[in-house]
Amino acid sequence: MLLTLDLVGIFVFAISGGLVAVRNQLDIVGVVVLAMATGLGGGVIRDVVIGAVPPPAVKDWWYLLVPVVGGLVTFWWHPAVGRLERVINVFDAFGLGLFCVAGALKAHEYGLGPVPAAALGMVTGVGGGIIRDLLVGRVPVIFRKGQLYAIPALAGAAVASTGAELGLAGELVVGPAAAVTIGWRLLALNRGWTAPLPRT
Amino acid sequence: MLLTLDLVGIFVFAISGGLVAVRNQLDIVGVVVLAMATGLGGGVIRDVVIGAVPPPAVKDWWYLLVPVVGGLVTFWWHPAVGRLERVINVFDAFGLGLFCVAGALKAHEYGLGPVPAAALGMVTGVGGGIIRDLLVGRVPVIFRKGQLYAIPALAGAAVASTGAELGLAGELVVGPAAAVTIGWRLLALNRGWTAPLPRT
Amino acid sequence: MLLTLDLVGIFVFAISGGLVAVRNQLDIVGVVVLAMATGLGGGVIRDVVIGAVPPPAVKDWWYLLVPVVGGLVTFWWHPAVGRLERVINVFDAFGLGLFCVAGALKAHEYGLGPVPAAALGMVTGVGGGIIRDLLVGRVPVIFRKGQLYAIPALAGAAVASTGAELGLAGELVVGPAAAVTIGWRLLALNRGWTAPLPRT
Repeated sequence: MLLTLDLVGIFVFAISGGLVAVRNQLDIVGVVVLAMATGLGGGVIRDVVIGAVPPPAVKDWWYLLVPVVGGLVTFWWHPAVGRLERVINVFDAFGLGLFCVAGALKAHEYGLGPVPAAALGMVTGVGGGIIRDLLVGRVPVIFRKGQLYAIPALAGAAVASTGAELGLAGELVVGPAAAVTIGWRLLALNRGWTAPLPRT
Repeated sequence: MLLTLDLVGIFVFAISGGLVAVRNQLDIVGVVVLAMATGLGGGVIRDVVIGAVPPPAVKDWWYLLVPVVGGLVTFWWHPAVGRLERVINVFDAFGLGLFCVAGALKAHEYGLGPVPAAALGMVTGVGGGIIRDLLVGRVPVIFRKGQLYAIPALAGAAVASTGAELGLAGELVVGPAAAVTIGWRLLALNRGWTAPLPRT
Repeated sequence: MLLTLDLVGIFVFAISGGLVAVRNQLDIVGVVVLAMATGLGGGVIRDVVIGAVPPPAVKDWWYLLVPVVGGLVTFWWHPAVGRLERVINVFDAFGLGLFCVAGALKAHEYGLGPVPAAALGMVTGVGGGIIRDLLVGRVPVIFRKGQLYAIPALAGAAVASTGAELGLAGELVVGPAAAVTIGWRLLALNRGWTAPLPRT
């Protein structure tokens, strides 16, 4: 069940990476690599940092197959996929919630305290998108005006890592923590909320 | 023997990194760092991901000296080095073949299955060039029209990881697997083959 | 004592990251993430490469708090902070000296020889700034004309790793090694020294 959700999240992230690649006129290699980097990058960074190597995303070939398929689907049917962007944004919010919570819980399992675990949960959720943007030479969208993405990600991860620190069972924590990220992100999308900018 | 080949590959990759740095008007620090990143980056990524730390590229100072020399040679004699670009491309194909195959076999040794080992073999071959391009702010050439580089790399790595999975001796696998990458890459260079682009 | 110095170095680096973010019109997420990446990036790269995971910068929440505060200070008071740039450059030289020396000594502790330890010491000092620049899509300043930064960093790291290799006590090594980096860097700032460029 959790594996399925995880793979769905990777698939959606992979499509977002593939679309960015297509729009930057990359070839099939670029599309597939961006799809993989976006789908798997956040989890691999987390695993390397906490010492969980080789990461499951590398050991288990399901984790490699899913983003490759996401990339190839985008490569062949990108006009249709691109029109689904609003739907993809919604799925992306679910993927984000799941990744942040799963990342925070895994970091907790590896002995990190609640603050580092929340930070690594956020990295799990947003790391793939940062790598995607770097690979096409643009400033990561999560750093720019017009998005509220990383803050909901951190909030859900913080709820998850606090719950784990308090000794609550994982099943009790996952739902509410992911709901914080997903709900806040969907509201931000719907209402056009953005993160504050520095005074000029 | 394999060590010598490995160092030759690193040297050629380092020169390619140094040339990119010179053409982007970097100073001596940029030239040497790009030479090192291009020569060693792919192997270091692989080693960090599979948990083979500290990587030999960091532990053994031969591995540090060779790309530094490659960078300095390029820094001082770049007009002559630049004129050798066709020769460098041929050596680069050999370096690519060797890196992909060695990378796949090392990943297999660390317990990865054939699909992940092939993927990491490709990363070993192309990772250094991706880092080189990111460091000068350009979209990695292997993602762009006009190259067929990563696909031959993956093919050779896949032959190597399949051979290792079937239990064949390393000596039997290295030659044919590297030949696949090298031959396909040289043909692509010679014939101007490129990877497919998405429909517009 | 060493911890305090380390945290001061992280704080100064974080401010430099925050200023770059503000000048690139990033939002609060970008400012805080750049501050963290600049303050912690070099040490995290070193720790991942030598296998010291999870890195202290991730385990210990003091290491997370300090760059976040540095980022928020820059976010709110960037006009005042920006006017202090000359002062920041001086503190930055001290941070650089400390990071390079501490990085080289830690790499030595983990069994690396003097050449790799010096290289990793330099990476500890300059890695955060490279990540900062990549995240805003510019070629790292340490690779460009107009700076002499990485060479003093390497020099101090080399003094430290040589001292450690010779078996000298850490307390004897830290001071002179850091002085090499800090002194050379301050002289370079003051005199406008730069690293050599390739002939055109």
